Amino acid sequence: MAIITLTTDFGEKDHFTGATKGAIYSELPDVNIVDISHNVSPFSIPEAAYIIQNAYSSFPKGTIHIIGIDSEINAENKHIAVKLDDHYFICANNGIMSMICSDIAPEKIVEINIHDRLQSSFPVLDVFVKVACHIARGGTLEVIGKTINSIKPIKNIEPFVKDDKTQIIGSIIYIDNYGNVITNIKRSFFESIQKGRTFEISARNYKFKKIHQKYSDIVNFDIPAEKRQDEGRKLVVFNSGGFLEISVFKSNPSTVGGASSLLGLGIMDAVSINFSAESALPNAI
Amino acid sequence: MAIITLTTDFGEKDHFTGATKGAIYSELPDVNIVDISHNVSPFSIPEAAYIIQNAYSSFPKGTIHIIGIDSEINAENKHIAVKLDDHYFICANNGIMSMICSDIAPEKIVEINIHDRLQSSFPVLDVFVKVACHIARGGTLEVIGKTINSIKPIKNIEPFVKDDKTQIIGSIIYIDNYGNVITNIKRSFFESIQKGRTFEISARNYKFKKIHQKYSDIVNFDIPAEKRQDEGRKLVVFNSGGFLEISVFKSNPSTVGGASSLLGLGIMDAVSINFSAESALPNAI
Amino acid sequence: MAIITLTTDFGEKDHFTGATKGAIYSELPDVNIVDISHNVSPFSIPEAAYIIQNAYSSFPKGTIHIIGIDSEINAENKHIAVKLDDHYFICANNGIMSMICSDIAPEKIVEINIHDRLQSSFPVLDVFVKVACHIARGGTLEVIGKTINSIKPIKNIEPFVKDDKTQIIGSIIYIDNYGNVITNIKRSFFESIQKGRTFEISARNYKFKKIHQKYSDIVNFDIPAEKRQDEGRKLVVFNSGGFLEISVFKSNPSTVGGASSLLGLGIMDAVSINFSAESALPNAI
Repeated sequence: MAIITLTTDFGEKDHFTGATKGAIYSELPDVNIVDISHNVSPFSIPEAAYIIQNAYSSFPKGTIHIIGIDSEINAENKHIAVKLDDHYFICANNGIMSMICSDIAPEKIVEINIHDRLQSSFPVLDVFVKVACHIARGGTLEVIGKTINSIKPIKNIEPFVKDDKTQIIGSIIYIDNYGNVITNIKRSFFESIQKGRTFEISARNYKFKKIHQKYSDIVNFDIPAEKRQDEGRKLVVFNSGGFLEISVFKSNPSTVGGASSLLGLGIMDAVSINFSAESALPNAI
Repeated sequence: MAIITLTTDFGEKDHFTGATKGAIYSELPDVNIVDISHNVSPFSIPEAAYIIQNAYSSFPKGTIHIIGIDSEINAENKHIAVKLDDHYFICANNGIMSMICSDIAPEKIVEINIHDRLQSSFPVLDVFVKVACHIARGGTLEVIGKTINSIKPIKNIEPFVKDDKTQIIGSIIYIDNYGNVITNIKRSFFESIQKGRTFEISARNYKFKKIHQKYSDIVNFDIPAEKRQDEGRKLVVFNSGGFLEISVFKSNPSTVGGASSLLGLGIMDAVSINFSAESALPNAI
Repeated sequence: MAIITLTTDFGEKDHFTGATKGAIYSELPDVNIVDISHNVSPFSIPEAAYIIQNAYSSFPKGTIHIIGIDSEINAENKHIAVKLDDHYFICANNGIMSMICSDIAPEKIVEINIHDRLQSSFPVLDVFVKVACHIARGGTLEVIGKTINSIKPIKNIEPFVKDDKTQIIGSIIYIDNYGNVITNIKRSFFESIQKGRTFEISARNYKFKKIHQKYSDIVNFDIPAEKRQDEGRKLVVFNSGGFLEISVFKSNPSTVGGASSLLGLGIMDAVSINFSAESALPNAI
């Protein structure tokens, strides 16, 4: 049974998502529709790129991903379908795919050209559903679009590195449900620059000299539980998606606050890493 | 495989929705349960009516729609099942169905009378699930209720028209995820009164003389993208459900604001349309 | 087809839930994944315990429940799988299961020990999914863990009773989507202490002498609807889960407020019940 996932900024209240699912079932009764997220901030392409990047690869090969963010078609916003890593992605050519495509080269990109057959005031429902069901039935991309060679990029998906490799300057691209702030610095990228050197991470006036393997590594289990004061302590980890993240232990943004509110760190703020001149022990992180 | 949709004011946190789904699967293992919305404002019948009206028709014929809003049974709030447009609706007789029924005449309405067989403190789970599974198994409405001929209306689902047809006075019935404000004035109704005349739409002290086909129609693509100032501009469209909507281009209610917050327009506020005496060119909208 | 439910504090925006579902489908294409809640307050074990307690039993026997709250493994937070009431639960041993287990004795508890086979920075996705799919394929708990005899308790799941049985002191454990405040006093427990006596319920300076069967019992249907002033009145019911609940009729926390905001009652606040010395008529509640 084909799997179609949905990542949109429709929110959880309006009829958009329900109507989209109804349209898919009307075309294709035997299909598995999975919500990835409908709470992307309205029109936020970087958020959508981050979410789909971290979710898609858990799904089986052949999964079809509909991404409904800023998808109204116009002279500068065409619709595309992309085959990459044996997954299919259907979205507007507005930068959403550039984060995934910067990691893995797409096998095929087509600009969708079935619009003359459809009258559309709700492109996810009218166009993307048609394309998704076409692919789910085994149809090829060539039938619904013409091949193109590149997609629209977005800014700030890659951190900046100083020429002498003494500094990485990244930026915050996402704030998660716990208030953790997530940067565009991936573990593999960090390690390729670090080469075993010691380092200091700076975000506003906060400094960190260690990247933890997991959140509870900051807990000292030798102290009796009732005397510990770890909740609320800040730390840096590579999160499960491999991104450098500044976190506050056991945070809750709606009560005690999270890293974003407590440290005053928001989307697009800089996070820099300075490396020491001398080399450190191998695997020192 | 039967499809049962859920539209409720249960929210996304409590156990109500999960328990309802569990009860459906316990009765009927092979069924497709689809969430339309669980974020209807508590007890808001107009919101539920708007959402179900816009979502249901995308689903295949035969789909069963459970609507769990203000569904506690009492002397004045009976439970009904309605067959309309080859879809089934199960809800309280509290006005929710009147918006759909004003467009399409119901084939059959029954007042559910299986309550003597059930002890109920959670009617969606106890009663609506039983009725939905009965219908999904091919059962008829007559078995679970007695036929009635009319349903409870709600106020303000139809806009008011001046006797001389120079003015429509509508009201705002819904605010969507982008902060767009949606009126009860449908395109077909508008056109039947307009008859090609020019018009002016008024909401508070804002005036509009044009209804756009889509949101990005207000963008002037001749100006270079980095010099445009379209984000934040207000416009009027007929939305994908066919309702007249006042929108702010690329709005986000949690950051820059949306039409509702920026223009100070809320539920039940008036939106009026004044028509010119003389007739305009055909298709001038 | 096996059913796997998800109860987490992942929220509705991030990729965590989507990725978890993708991982399940990658292991087990024919499975029914049902969301119970992803909006448990971050790290709130009592909330998760309340939600899963009220949802699980509606599902068919054999259902597998993944509970992803505070599930990072460490010296003091092991992973367990529990068979109870012919349902399976997979979670951290952090107290979540103690509310269910206080009602029904578990058949089997194992401490999961497959971690040496898995590298895990996202335990729900890496460990819980593996265990759930193992159980769904008919595997036994012994294969993925070693039997243990007890689980970690949480505080305040049981109300306190005075030695002379003249008073129950409970506490508020949950606030629902309508703002209703829910105590840890269950109907069966209340009745076993009450034994037909009259009583007075106190929360802050509010007093109640009656527990209603349903919310609309406070409405006087003899008064014409337009003259009634029932909306906003406070009342006490046993909710559909059997817990004593203080409610405000037709409340909406985001507009007019709910019991929690209007009466100033929050999580962990005390609710006490004083019984009269003399016995009342039987079934007087």
